[in-house]
Amino acid sequence: MNSFGRIFRISIFGESHGKKVGVCIDGCPAGLAIDEADFRHDLSRRQGGGGKGTTPRREPDSPNIVSGVVNGCTTGSPITILFENTNTRSSDYDNLRDIPRPGHADFSAYKRYGGFADMRGSGHFSGRLTVGIVAAGVVAKKIIAPAKASARLVQVGGSEEIDETIAKAADSGDSVGGLIECLITGIEAGVGEPFFDSVEARLSHFIFAVPATRGIEFGTGFNAAMMLGSEHNDPFCSQQGRTLSNHAGGINGGITNGNDIIFRVAVKPASSIAKPQTTMNFTTGSMETLEVHGRHDACIAVRIVPVIEAAAAITMADMILTRKAGEAFRGQDNSYKQ
Amino acid sequence: MNSFGRIFRISIFGESHGKKVGVCIDGCPAGLAIDEADFRHDLSRRQGGGGKGTTPRREPDSPNIVSGVVNGCTTGSPITILFENTNTRSSDYDNLRDIPRPGHADFSAYKRYGGFADMRGSGHFSGRLTVGIVAAGVVAKKIIAPAKASARLVQVGGSEEIDETIAKAADSGDSVGGLIECLITGIEAGVGEPFFDSVEARLSHFIFAVPATRGIEFGTGFNAAMMLGSEHNDPFCSQQGRTLSNHAGGINGGITNGNDIIFRVAVKPASSIAKPQTTMNFTTGSMETLEVHGRHDACIAVRIVPVIEAAAAITMADMILTRKAGEAFRGQDNSYKQ
Amino acid sequence: MNSFGRIFRISIFGESHGKKVGVCIDGCPAGLAIDEADFRHDLSRRQGGGGKGTTPRREPDSPNIVSGVVNGCTTGSPITILFENTNTRSSDYDNLRDIPRPGHADFSAYKRYGGFADMRGSGHFSGRLTVGIVAAGVVAKKIIAPAKASARLVQVGGSEEIDETIAKAADSGDSVGGLIECLITGIEAGVGEPFFDSVEARLSHFIFAVPATRGIEFGTGFNAAMMLGSEHNDPFCSQQGRTLSNHAGGINGGITNGNDIIFRVAVKPASSIAKPQTTMNFTTGSMETLEVHGRHDACIAVRIVPVIEAAAAITMADMILTRKAGEAFRGQDNSYKQ
Amino acid sequence: MNSFGRIFRISIFGESHGKKVGVCIDGCPAGLAIDEADFRHDLSRRQGGGGKGTTPRREPDSPNIVSGVVNGCTTGSPITILFENTNTRSSDYDNLRDIPRPGHADFSAYKRYGGFADMRGSGHFSGRLTVGIVAAGVVAKKIIAPAKASARLVQVGGSEEIDETIAKAADSGDSVGGLIECLITGIEAGVGEPFFDSVEARLSHFIFAVPATRGIEFGTGFNAAMMLGSEHNDPFCSQQGRTLSNHAGGINGGITNGNDIIFRVAVKPASSIAKPQTTMNFTTGSMETLEVHGRHDACIAVRIVPVIEAAAAITMADMILTRKAGEAFRGQDNSYKQ
Repeated sequence: MNSFGRIFRISIFGESHGKKVGVCIDGCPAGLAIDEADFRHDLSRRQGGGGKGTTPRREPDSPNIVSGVVNGCTTGSPITILFENTNTRSSDYDNLRDIPRPGHADFSAYKRYGGFADMRGSGHFSGRLTVGIVAAGVVAKKIIAPAKASARLVQVGGSEEIDETIAKAADSGDSVGGLIECLITGIEAGVGEPFFDSVEARLSHFIFAVPATRGIEFGTGFNAAMMLGSEHNDPFCSQQGRTLSNHAGGINGGITNGNDIIFRVAVKPASSIAKPQTTMNFTTGSMETLEVHGRHDACIAVRIVPVIEAAAAITMADMILTRKAGEAFRGQDNSYKQ
Repeated sequence: MNSFGRIFRISIFGESHGKKVGVCIDGCPAGLAIDEADFRHDLSRRQGGGGKGTTPRREPDSPNIVSGVVNGCTTGSPITILFENTNTRSSDYDNLRDIPRPGHADFSAYKRYGGFADMRGSGHFSGRLTVGIVAAGVVAKKIIAPAKASARLVQVGGSEEIDETIAKAADSGDSVGGLIECLITGIEAGVGEPFFDSVEARLSHFIFAVPATRGIEFGTGFNAAMMLGSEHNDPFCSQQGRTLSNHAGGINGGITNGNDIIFRVAVKPASSIAKPQTTMNFTTGSMETLEVHGRHDACIAVRIVPVIEAAAAITMADMILTRKAGEAFRGQDNSYKQ
Repeated sequence: MNSFGRIFRISIFGESHGKKVGVCIDGCPAGLAIDEADFRHDLSRRQGGGGKGTTPRREPDSPNIVSGVVNGCTTGSPITILFENTNTRSSDYDNLRDIPRPGHADFSAYKRYGGFADMRGSGHFSGRLTVGIVAAGVVAKKIIAPAKASARLVQVGGSEEIDETIAKAADSGDSVGGLIECLITGIEAGVGEPFFDSVEARLSHFIFAVPATRGIEFGTGFNAAMMLGSEHNDPFCSQQGRTLSNHAGGINGGITNGNDIIFRVAVKPASSIAKPQTTMNFTTGSMETLEVHGRHDACIAVRIVPVIEAAAAITMADMILTRKAGEAFRGQDNSYKQ
Repeated sequence: MNSFGRIFRISIFGESHGKKVGVCIDGCPAGLAIDEADFRHDLSRRQGGGGKGTTPRREPDSPNIVSGVVNGCTTGSPITILFENTNTRSSDYDNLRDIPRPGHADFSAYKRYGGFADMRGSGHFSGRLTVGIVAAGVVAKKIIAPAKASARLVQVGGSEEIDETIAKAADSGDSVGGLIECLITGIEAGVGEPFFDSVEARLSHFIFAVPATRGIEFGTGFNAAMMLGSEHNDPFCSQQGRTLSNHAGGINGGITNGNDIIFRVAVKPASSIAKPQTTMNFTTGSMETLEVHGRHDACIAVRIVPVIEAAAAITMADMILTRKAGEAFRGQDNSYKQ
């Protein structure tokens, strides 16, 4: 299932070397102003580029909105945005059937799809697909405004010396992981639900749909496992629900409490590396040296930053719209104090 | 939405001090042998008890299967399992409307449900609701067999001296967090999908539906953010897909690769503590000292262990059954090698 | 899947001779006043009784609300309503495995559930399950108010002489079909969507979930197939969207236009009849005479009337709540004229 | 929500005069042979053409498969099929905001989408969107094979003199309704579920997603409302479940019984007619004469025939794949006799 969302729903499709990749957004409210230029900034961020060890900057992906927007506004019908795959000279991927690449989905996809999965450039498993997520995020950001999601890379390879660490990995034909922090500000209290529609459940679902993510923590996160309750509890300090500390990352019982939502995401080092690797040749049954050719990102976390931000915006847009449905009978009874 | 699953779907309901709590399981295949005694072990584990700082052992919850099982076998129709709430002398919870408890959902639920949420014993937000998850897990474990999910508490308060650390927190009227590790063995390669139905996405969605969870990591997890690709990649060492290391935690591209699935969950310290806390009285607008009475768990992570295990079994049961649907045309073409 | 709805979601469970039947309602807004007495009228209508050929009036089913309602108001958490099965002395249903009853689900359920389906009193396939639908309808009616769904039996056996026709069928140990008309008044224009969430698509989905329904038509319905466009089109006659005729049954393009919604449902004659029937004995392989004992309804359409009404209210409640989510950006632009 | 299906899921998008229309198919099993030529026949049928009163034959729509198919086989990832809109010289649709067309969605869409809906050529409400349904149907037909769905037009305007009746309506600048019968043969017993996933519930949901449908009946349908149980019950006459009559249309208790599935669909006359109509001008508030220009189909039922067939194939494909998931534990116990 390549879809996510209850009211604001996105579906992504495509393969790295197929004709097109794209996204279909269903359930977007009508009347939202959308322009193709709105997409430029985030799509460009996703392409990375510039720094050593990241792919040289190319022209930004150009979104082709083929439905759902008329006269610069959403119409309420599904918005489909297509992107061309321009760089699809597929080198020979046949040997991947002999030697599945370590850390890649070659083997598991093979088992899942009975040998029919597209192997060219990782096919449907490619990070290329995240272009549709970023595009949908641009729309979602308009829905959640004035609330705002912003993500940034806080560590690479355990170090805050980001550029140096990436350059070093690149120089040795290797890749390196990174840590992303995402902050969502301005969400009012009362969004989310306990249990399966908790803010954490929905956000983590989306974050782990992004290739290469390995961990997520909210607020104090894994440190909470080491804390005492008297340290971790966030005392309220205003009648609007402001808390003195924010160990909870803005969420109590799955529902926003009006403080900033904070989460961090661990991104693994890219599996494609220039360094030779020793692994099983499934055809011959012997261990062999595999060299994966082509240009690789030394730190994919760089390019995943806007994808995480988009994931956060899309998830919150869906949850905010869903909440509106549940508000129906608020106000019938004003026995509550606020 | 209090439901989870695509084929094997569970819905939980109830409140801490309401008449009953329970679970409805829809989509369970017919012909599975089920006996009320099957539930005893896991339900008892969830009650904790015995050790210092955990609630004294009570009689295990008794499952009342009111539909979906006839002559000791599932019938294919929905299985509803009810539990009585026997300990529902609600003390006065009215003051929670004045002073929402730090770390609890009192305030956020208030905003979400317009003052109508049940406040007695945390109402629908109570850990009491996890009894239904554990019960559904017992059924799910039969579906995934011979694969097996097993969780255990590996640290409390950052220490492996679990009993001592809990006792110390209990003695000071405090609570303490913990770290749970879950291992799923015996799942064949090829379960899951890329993106929104990845094993990580689905598992994390469920894990964060469990109250008090603050972080999850798969395989090497947050450490992956500090590693090089040449370290993190898991070389294959057998034609069945066995890998030399298991940094990926048994999952590539969202799909199982046949190696053990491993994940860790951070559990925060319980919010209810005996220690006095200073927080806002929303009615008076001044900071006041709050004392939360009653007996509390000093380390709720102890009782969450079987809940995590159930969550893992339920999620994998659903994904295994979903995969069967997708297998339809396997074997039409035997061009693949295995 | 025994669930229906996007925002206001119901799940039904139970078997005719099991311990309990019931319904779980998820996504009901908080703050709705609910009392067990509210259910009495519709539950009583569903029991039929009184007239010749219908089951003699018994005490109305008594709803046991075990979650989701506190202090007479919905809390926003799932509402579970249980009903006892008091009349469950199962006679021997084993011969149904030899001779599946014509018109019943004995054979098809056998194939679907591999022989594990509950056969006692039609098990999960029983009309008994509609008690949960009627109960959920009582809640839904409060959501759609002041809009109103009302259904009535307009024909039995092709005749408007309802009582006489039923009596005649009863006297001959037979059963007879009926035609139900449902009117939904007061729904504002703009509810529904084109295609898969059209009002007709959602209503018909629910109506055919009710056992014994065989046809549905909206507005002019099957007669529309015989009409000219110049006859069928409904001219608008007020700026509020009132139409001169209502062949469309209040729906254009899947969306309400503010006029009355009208649909009719064909109900087949009950399959259980006293008259002997000749059918296959699957064990012996020969045609045999089957006599189905017990008291039967001569016209189940009588008891289905409130079920259809409940189905209409539940579906519209869900669609009205869903629409609220989509309204978010209305009013941003007032370029439209009304 | 423009999506349908649980396992085999389709989403449609586009507007009559937008850049493209299309369909995204998610959950299609891998390994299914697909060729663009496979689509030609059904797409051509949907274009109608030839007969008097139907649009002159144009070149068939050409499907552009941009994802999910590699080397002539489905890969298991989403299949997106695009169609160009070549005939999009939009005449002035602005006056539709003044005078909503009788029988069209102009007014109801206006209310639903706050004036932002695309009005050009009926926009997203256009029958143009059914091209995606027909394309998805071509894929679904391969899944259900050797079972087969076939639909045909059995009446127009109440007459079996189809061509003459259409010609007559066309000559008078009018349109006329029609009746379609669909037969699904070769579906094994045991597909479907009671209640919300009954075969009738799922089929009717899809059928009413097709624009212009006004009624559906299964088997004997509305006539069942006039019958006695002793007439309507279908006696079994073989140990394979063959029945002597087929009033049930191949479905008992929502589940297939192995006999032919039969249903009929009422299609209204097209709302766009050349004949002048008197209706409200919402801007002036007075009744005015409206003339809708352009070439119209005199009987859209002609072109809806392959759409109904596709709807039947898609629904059954989804239900067959879903059933496979539920079969998991069949055969554990062979106590049942077949």
